[in-house]
Amino acid sequence: MKSTQIRLASRPKGEPVAGDFEKVEIDLPEVGEGQVALRTIYLSLDPYMRGRMSDARSYAQPVEIGGVITGGTVCQVVQSRADKFKEGDFVLSMSGWQSADVVDAKGLRKLDPADAPISTAVGVLGMPGLTAYVGLLDIGQPKAGETVVVSAASGAVGSVVGQLARIKGARVVGVAGSPEKVAFVKDELGFDACVSHRSDSLKDDLKAACPKGVDVYFENVGGATLDAALSLMNPFGRIPVCGMISLYNATSLDGGPSRASLMRQILTDRLHIQGFIVTERWDRFGSFVKEVGGYIRSGELKYREDIVEGLENAPETFVGLLKGRNFGKQLIRVSADPTRD
Amino acid sequence: MKSTQIRLASRPKGEPVAGDFEKVEIDLPEVGEGQVALRTIYLSLDPYMRGRMSDARSYAQPVEIGGVITGGTVCQVVQSRADKFKEGDFVLSMSGWQSADVVDAKGLRKLDPADAPISTAVGVLGMPGLTAYVGLLDIGQPKAGETVVVSAASGAVGSVVGQLARIKGARVVGVAGSPEKVAFVKDELGFDACVSHRSDSLKDDLKAACPKGVDVYFENVGGATLDAALSLMNPFGRIPVCGMISLYNATSLDGGPSRASLMRQILTDRLHIQGFIVTERWDRFGSFVKEVGGYIRSGELKYREDIVEGLENAPETFVGLLKGRNFGKQLIRVSADPTRD
Repeated sequence: MKSTQIRLASRPKGEPVAGDFEKVEIDLPEVGEGQVALRTIYLSLDPYMRGRMSDARSYAQPVEIGGVITGGTVCQVVQSRADKFKEGDFVLSMSGWQSADVVDAKGLRKLDPADAPISTAVGVLGMPGLTAYVGLLDIGQPKAGETVVVSAASGAVGSVVGQLARIKGARVVGVAGSPEKVAFVKDELGFDACVSHRSDSLKDDLKAACPKGVDVYFENVGGATLDAALSLMNPFGRIPVCGMISLYNATSLDGGPSRASLMRQILTDRLHIQGFIVTERWDRFGSFVKEVGGYIRSGELKYREDIVEGLENAPETFVGLLKGRNFGKQLIRVSADPTRD
Repeated sequence: MKSTQIRLASRPKGEPVAGDFEKVEIDLPEVGEGQVALRTIYLSLDPYMRGRMSDARSYAQPVEIGGVITGGTVCQVVQSRADKFKEGDFVLSMSGWQSADVVDAKGLRKLDPADAPISTAVGVLGMPGLTAYVGLLDIGQPKAGETVVVSAASGAVGSVVGQLARIKGARVVGVAGSPEKVAFVKDELGFDACVSHRSDSLKDDLKAACPKGVDVYFENVGGATLDAALSLMNPFGRIPVCGMISLYNATSLDGGPSRASLMRQILTDRLHIQGFIVTERWDRFGSFVKEVGGYIRSGELKYREDIVEGLENAPETFVGLLKGRNFGKQLIRVSADPTRD
């Protein structure tokens, strides 16, 4: 059995380019006792992967040069020598950017297409959804009547953050890019308002949308959106720091507003700013799936997927993701989804 | 009855100068029903007062131009028309920078010299002590075996933070200025180590003193000490932001490390940074006085006062306080302390 892999050829300087990736076809090893062979159906693309391509000090080991790039995948079992899995089963795996894999069955979670579309296991009911859940509820802790601002509001994480906050009774204001996304966030996701970070009047637009100031700012992006949100924070405001997409391709973190100005505001406004990493919060997965799964089944919480065909398109699609070119949860369909096609 | 007052003549630009203050003698009003006349014994000088001299947006109203400068005081009742107080009683008041005052008795707390020296009511058993208590225990939450770094370690707040952290079983490292302070923090207060922020090798010195990294950094100062502490923060580190003394005289917050660099580290290291204002935490006063009062009586927790004679010296002493010229809790003795003199 063969696997087509996309490997890291070199560490990107700034925005990744084609030469930073290499496509390789390999022969997979035989399936050992307790192992399964998998065919990748969906590969999830997520901004955190940019960090794994660098060797800067971080919470996770970087991908080695020549290694397959990390990624969550939804796969189908094509051969099994493990008790709990049989051919045809759907599973959640961390097989990364490749078309097939042979892995120990222990690390896999079986997916039941009757529960939810299998693609949601890497989206709204997977890591991005859990990210939204723990960041918003455990750190942001919105109260009814408070105002929650969400950056990257149409994305995999932001869309869940905003809808959850709305369900909790908060006023929810999104920040997104294109007019289509802004409209989607308001009309489809039901946010109270949404503004565009492309507008020259972002600060004023956000202020108009937040007449009572901002109590929770869910940080996905940094940059001008962070500027605007900080200018509106209420005393005792909370800022869960989930990501800083605008910095991921940065070759320098110098310039821009000073650390001192932020520290002063933290003091003056008694802000609570806290970073978190979802992979350290699997303890919350059970309650997350129960609660958010319920909202999905009842239709209270919606999600949108942006599916690109073909593993070979993963590098370019990933570069676009960091620029906000995706519209919804970014997936690569590596092979046919028998539950949908 | 007369009062000598030090009033704010103009808003300081940068470091306060003599001309920003004016000394005025006034006739106090008659003592009304429910009121008392007070003679100031101790005036507390605290860095937060610099903020009250400015009209920048903050959590508290600024002192008006021509107004008496804010400050906690330990006073003696010289005339009473209030049931709960009699002539000779000692009280905690917020009479500010003046030698006498007539106030409603409702806002006063009676002090018993048998419990503790009356000066401690504006120090280790007053606002600075409570600041240390809530910042360290409620936000910092040190665990036994963790490393706690305290800036302004010999000061009114820092000295309590460090000793409390040590009592809780943490390794405690102070940052102070002069060799005398560094020695005092180690030898008298019993910190595990203390380094000087005046050293060119501050970062290396602090690293050597924190072989397991830093879990809690109690922020009083900003600047180079914050740089050094951030470079050593462990994952899930906590930074209670109590003050930023190095910025209080700053006319601009531009320059220095960028906000982006801090935000990235908050994410990467999953830091929890939180500002707080002690005057919003009087709900913790009861448990604070019980616990810290006990440590004072048992000798487990020590404190040092830096007492300057004469209200007329308050402005110059205050300017020195912001430069770290004090050595221990800064007090002005405005008139004789009959419990001590």
